[in-house]
Amino acid sequence: MDTNKLRSLCPALQNKTYFNYGGQGPLPTPSLEAITTSWKRIQELGPFTADVWPYISAEVNKTRSRLARLCNVPAHQLALSENVTSGCVLPLWGLPLDQGDHILISDCEHPGVVAACQELARRQQLEIHTLPVKQFRQGRDEQVKTDDDVLAVLAQRLTNRTRLVVLSHLLWNTGQLMPIAAVAAQLQAHPAQPYLLVDAAQSVGQIPVSEAARAADIYAFTGHKWACGPEGLGGVAVSERVLNDSQPTLIGWRSLQDETRAVADDPDPFHHDSRRFEVATSCVPLMSGLRRSLDLLDQEGSENDRINSIRALSEQLWRELSSIPGVSTLLEGPPPAGLVSFRLNVETTPATPSDVVKALGAQQIWIRDLADPVCLRACTHVCTSRNDIEQLTQQIRRLSAEDHCD
Amino acid sequence: MDTNKLRSLCPALQNKTYFNYGGQGPLPTPSLEAITTSWKRIQELGPFTADVWPYISAEVNKTRSRLARLCNVPAHQLALSENVTSGCVLPLWGLPLDQGDHILISDCEHPGVVAACQELARRQQLEIHTLPVKQFRQGRDEQVKTDDDVLAVLAQRLTNRTRLVVLSHLLWNTGQLMPIAAVAAQLQAHPAQPYLLVDAAQSVGQIPVSEAARAADIYAFTGHKWACGPEGLGGVAVSERVLNDSQPTLIGWRSLQDETRAVADDPDPFHHDSRRFEVATSCVPLMSGLRRSLDLLDQEGSENDRINSIRALSEQLWRELSSIPGVSTLLEGPPPAGLVSFRLNVETTPATPSDVVKALGAQQIWIRDLADPVCLRACTHVCTSRNDIEQLTQQIRRLSAEDHCD
Repeated sequence: MDTNKLRSLCPALQNKTYFNYGGQGPLPTPSLEAITTSWKRIQELGPFTADVWPYISAEVNKTRSRLARLCNVPAHQLALSENVTSGCVLPLWGLPLDQGDHILISDCEHPGVVAACQELARRQQLEIHTLPVKQFRQGRDEQVKTDDDVLAVLAQRLTNRTRLVVLSHLLWNTGQLMPIAAVAAQLQAHPAQPYLLVDAAQSVGQIPVSEAARAADIYAFTGHKWACGPEGLGGVAVSERVLNDSQPTLIGWRSLQDETRAVADDPDPFHHDSRRFEVATSCVPLMSGLRRSLDLLDQEGSENDRINSIRALSEQLWRELSSIPGVSTLLEGPPPAGLVSFRLNVETTPATPSDVVKALGAQQIWIRDLADPVCLRACTHVCTSRNDIEQLTQQIRRLSAEDHCD
Repeated sequence: MDTNKLRSLCPALQNKTYFNYGGQGPLPTPSLEAITTSWKRIQELGPFTADVWPYISAEVNKTRSRLARLCNVPAHQLALSENVTSGCVLPLWGLPLDQGDHILISDCEHPGVVAACQELARRQQLEIHTLPVKQFRQGRDEQVKTDDDVLAVLAQRLTNRTRLVVLSHLLWNTGQLMPIAAVAAQLQAHPAQPYLLVDAAQSVGQIPVSEAARAADIYAFTGHKWACGPEGLGGVAVSERVLNDSQPTLIGWRSLQDETRAVADDPDPFHHDSRRFEVATSCVPLMSGLRRSLDLLDQEGSENDRINSIRALSEQLWRELSSIPGVSTLLEGPPPAGLVSFRLNVETTPATPSDVVKALGAQQIWIRDLADPVCLRACTHVCTSRNDIEQLTQQIRRLSAEDHCD
């Protein structure tokens, strides 16, 4: 697989050594060109004319179909959204939950989603329970290491009032992969039939997602991380059950079947498909940019080829980091995908993770620090090179050695 | 005032006669260039690095300050949003409303906002009442024609349980201007102290908004209509009272004071300023585009100069339309701003409004039809020319005459 093609198209990768794909991916030049071309076409035909509507509809439909195909769901189950949070929370707040119901949320979810669940719980008097899935070698004794461990702890924590389980597909902090399809099967077999909300922020563009996206009730993702699309556009796949059971929350003209009809007289004003979770005017030109980025990723290889390439790179990084005295990786084995989280030994290294990020940044090597668990995270993508990894590990080695000598 | 400068910078205005500023404004070429320049800068510095954060912060702060200045509110009262619906609904769903409270909503609100209020009413068991403000010459006998009429009908319809009044600043269908500051004063003097939510979709970029924006509790607008900014970016000014009383709804990392802090242990996780109504990753490059468009509008004259110019043009259009047999304007006098709504006599003209839009569109003259009241709407902006108006009225005259002859 030639990983240099995509890399050569990304200006962001020309002047730095980049490992923050989990934060935001680079935007390839052809994707930016597709965006500006789309803007110009909208101005030429519109912006608000009968001539432009077929173009806008085609952009929306092509993007919806493309993302639906990626998730292996029919297009009517795929809603477009501004970001992964909107994709999670818009359907979440529409679920038919009753006072006293339980939400089971993993201990590795993003604070934004946690806060949205807590506010929902406060308003509707729900109980929040925690699903411990965090694998962390320097942490507690009891650890979740295998898929079976996840399913076992899930079985322990489910109650007869659990109506919703919130679990990321790929944990943003430790880099563990959750067995979403097996979790969904377990929930279906449970008497309470809980909904499954999956934060897929780290998945789309990195790992094959179709099995998990089809199994989840709400599978929300963004285009601006691993898919290398523009910021401000993502999507959410929703199950038929969610479409049938839920109400929209943030309602605008895109949620309505017929925006010209008087809503007051209509007992059923909302779309019955995924559009019930879309709101109002978004930035249409972003759509062609995201599709172009997905095309460029496809040119790097199939989903399976790409994740194999990403894993080969993350395994190299994980092994080299593991070999440095004073560095410990969070996971016990090579990562299942491209997120490699690690720590410098706090006893021998006075530098905080934030200090390490700064020191590396001064050399234009970019990783990030995380607060829970306190650690550093470097991501490998298909455009990562072995030379990138050598540069990073060399600097980490230097920082560790310096600290030993001090 | 030279209205040709802005016009010459808008590719959308080069090949058509455009009157749909109330639907979407044209994007000037310098604004699109500002957007692509911003994207390139983000790629050069980032996209996710310590080097790019100062640039992103500056973009957000400059845009927030600029929109806050336009609304004459402090920057901490201005939230950025994706569109006018999000701006209305995010704070709306956070208001502390109790079962049995009344919402008083005008009969000229956009269906998206009406639907959001109705869904909120269904969930929280609120009552919805209607505030009739529609002026429509062929309509009912009792009409709201003056500011005093609006205040009188408001006094009649307020109850001791009215907790929220929803009223547009400039009515999107009839083009009437509502006396928002006087309405706000009347609500403040009312024992129930209702909140005032103002849909300002048609206001920002067209009329001076500072008095109304400061008086309202929620004043939501978009940048992509009269302000000629890109689609996908707007804002909402919220009162200190709303900041103090309300909870965020659609919650993401931008709503949180500290996204690295464990939310579960924090009784007060949300920003206390307008950011409690912001969600997650948006398209930052749009911000420089909107600011550039606002600069270009400023170069056409002050807010007062511009609305005077817009009114001179809309008065010309209104007078010419009024003089055509078989055409009636909705308003009895010249419009207070740039929205000119009218009908072709249904007895003499078999063409539906949709037919008229199509016939004009075939000549690259673009107006729109509306469903409630059934009518046609043409908008004049500072970049409208007297020649545009002559072309439109000539065609309307022809369509009317044709129909008379048939």
